[in-house]
Amino acid sequence: MIPISSLNVKALEFIQTKIDNKTKPLGALGALEPLALQLALITEQRHQKSLDFNRADFSNSDLKRSGQISINNPIMLVFAGDHGINDHNVSIAPSAVTKQMVINFLRGGAAINCFCQSNDIALTVIDCGILQPISPDEAPQSAGDAMNSVNFIEQRLGAGTSDFSVQSAMSIIQVEQGFDYARQLVDAQVDQGAEILLLGEMGIANTSSAAALMSALTLFSVQECVGRGTGITDEQLEKKIALIESALQRVKISENNFENLTQDEIISLLSELGGFEIVQMVSAILSAATASIPVVIDGFIVSVAALVAQRLDKNVANYLIFSHVSQEHAHQILLEELISAQTFNESSSQPLLNLGLRLGEGTGAALALPLIKASASFYNNMASFESAGVTV
Amino acid sequence: MIPISSLNVKALEFIQTKIDNKTKPLGALGALEPLALQLALITEQRHQKSLDFNRADFSNSDLKRSGQISINNPIMLVFAGDHGINDHNVSIAPSAVTKQMVINFLRGGAAINCFCQSNDIALTVIDCGILQPISPDEAPQSAGDAMNSVNFIEQRLGAGTSDFSVQSAMSIIQVEQGFDYARQLVDAQVDQGAEILLLGEMGIANTSSAAALMSALTLFSVQECVGRGTGITDEQLEKKIALIESALQRVKISENNFENLTQDEIISLLSELGGFEIVQMVSAILSAATASIPVVIDGFIVSVAALVAQRLDKNVANYLIFSHVSQEHAHQILLEELISAQTFNESSSQPLLNLGLRLGEGTGAALALPLIKASASFYNNMASFESAGVTV
Repeated sequence: MIPISSLNVKALEFIQTKIDNKTKPLGALGALEPLALQLALITEQRHQKSLDFNRADFSNSDLKRSGQISINNPIMLVFAGDHGINDHNVSIAPSAVTKQMVINFLRGGAAINCFCQSNDIALTVIDCGILQPISPDEAPQSAGDAMNSVNFIEQRLGAGTSDFSVQSAMSIIQVEQGFDYARQLVDAQVDQGAEILLLGEMGIANTSSAAALMSALTLFSVQECVGRGTGITDEQLEKKIALIESALQRVKISENNFENLTQDEIISLLSELGGFEIVQMVSAILSAATASIPVVIDGFIVSVAALVAQRLDKNVANYLIFSHVSQEHAHQILLEELISAQTFNESSSQPLLNLGLRLGEGTGAALALPLIKASASFYNNMASFESAGVTV
Repeated sequence: MIPISSLNVKALEFIQTKIDNKTKPLGALGALEPLALQLALITEQRHQKSLDFNRADFSNSDLKRSGQISINNPIMLVFAGDHGINDHNVSIAPSAVTKQMVINFLRGGAAINCFCQSNDIALTVIDCGILQPISPDEAPQSAGDAMNSVNFIEQRLGAGTSDFSVQSAMSIIQVEQGFDYARQLVDAQVDQGAEILLLGEMGIANTSSAAALMSALTLFSVQECVGRGTGITDEQLEKKIALIESALQRVKISENNFENLTQDEIISLLSELGGFEIVQMVSAILSAATASIPVVIDGFIVSVAALVAQRLDKNVANYLIFSHVSQEHAHQILLEELISAQTFNESSSQPLLNLGLRLGEGTGAALALPLIKASASFYNNMASFESAGVTV
């Protein structure tokens, strides 16, 4: 994997001074201020790269961007996959619902469609390996409305993962194929001008896979990493915990070395416990960070993908924007872990929304985008005390 | 004053069922769900009015709207005024800064300009009585850019209020003039198609006036109603409390009857303790609610205006959307008070953002608008389980 650049902290003081000179009391824009700092640092990082005059695609517009935040052409990638673990009915819904919801996405009827349309986000849905592929007659009718159009891509790694409570969810080769798929997808989107990536997912029972990965990669017990998802019973919750615990016994992660796993060991963990959509999201996050593109993280599943990416390359953390915190305790402690890995800012960043969302699909990320754009807008456009003649 | 309609709860069950049948687990969109309920009830209320076939402006499009939330043409009104109480230096800034910031608004350089532009909100700034009027040569240069244009209106009630620690801030006639001004302004905007009103304010030292009104209209002590605003010292804070306490002694509000004040007594309180911008915001809120238009409340000052409006007509509360809660304790307890006055919903609504904002200007309201639009979008456009063929 290409190592991800740490952010250029030389620009930090300049950026902070610019924020502090805006016509407002110090810090009065709250969480939008460290967010602007982060976005400016990331844009600066991308700008430095584009100043490589030897690059074939270098242009004068690269030079002009300097000193401004640029997050044009936001794209939402929603990765979908099915999970063998749901043979044990650990979710409120049967696996068939994954495909039904993917079709709902393609027809424009889901919450993520509404929020992407509402906030001008280009939406792409990726079949990473749902049980049965979408057949042409299930494909959406052309809406003839650019705002409603949804891009659909097949990057299938199989027909659902294997049941990870008894065997590895997939092979190493499948993980590598998933990494390739998602990297090519993100690289193509970046080449087409995407400057900010939003992530979402759909996959019945994928909280089980995510909780297993979180527990394997942190000090937190399975109990702490498992929630009720969209609303399972006590009995289902106990079964879910038992299944994940037996999987973790099988893969034999020691509590002593989880922070020092090699890349190969983490890839192995992904093959043992992962989901097709989670694997592709890990790669998408790494690829965006490699291209110095900020990544907007959605709920628990996407946050676990971010954790895996961060364990593969610690510099990933600075490129992550946390859109929302859900009411699930596991999501809260996971975000604290990820935020503490960020190094650009002494006053730590925070999840932007706390609305009790528990839907996934990328809905939290889509809802947070206007705040991110507002943060860029105040940084780029607001007057300074000097330029406005304000004497505070 | 025209009595404000209580919301038509007959539609409540229909609306809640519609929300519950959307393709998502029950309640999975968190705070956006009661918000959609509120917006649908308000739209329904407006629709009922428009079904008065005798109205001169009745049209067939009024009929078509039924069953959908409609919040088109959002307008932000930023009311500005100066405060005699600042002769005692109770703020971090001299009163001259109010005018400097109004000029900053008119030139497009303030945070509220950035956020209105970012979120497609028409911005109007109203001089309600800053110390010195804006002269033509201070007026903004025409930007030639529709997105950047700011509407400016003079509705001056004087050259700053009197020092309310020793005398009434203004006369009853000034309050009534302010009510007329704002009602005419809001009515004109509604006639031009505004379906949602956002409020903001600018006025150095207006937290003192707001805290005095809050303490007079609730059980909370002055100490509980006063915060540090944008960052005053301990000494300034003590002085601020002492000045407000002496004002409250002068107006002799009893703790026993604050909830049963007559309209005349509340108008009298406004004249004693209010600000020119606060008076006009109270009237703007009442006027919007009378027209069945939802009102997006910003920070502490606007919330106090909402409290005064709610004391004048208890039905106002259901038309209020609380955009954000600041870190000031007084704002938190005030919002709890206002939310508890809402009757449309058993699971109470909540402030949409908690970002540590403390700027005013309407910035929180402007930042929350995309969430409100997203809420309307899911209600209007998302598929039902039945229509999408999802079998959960």
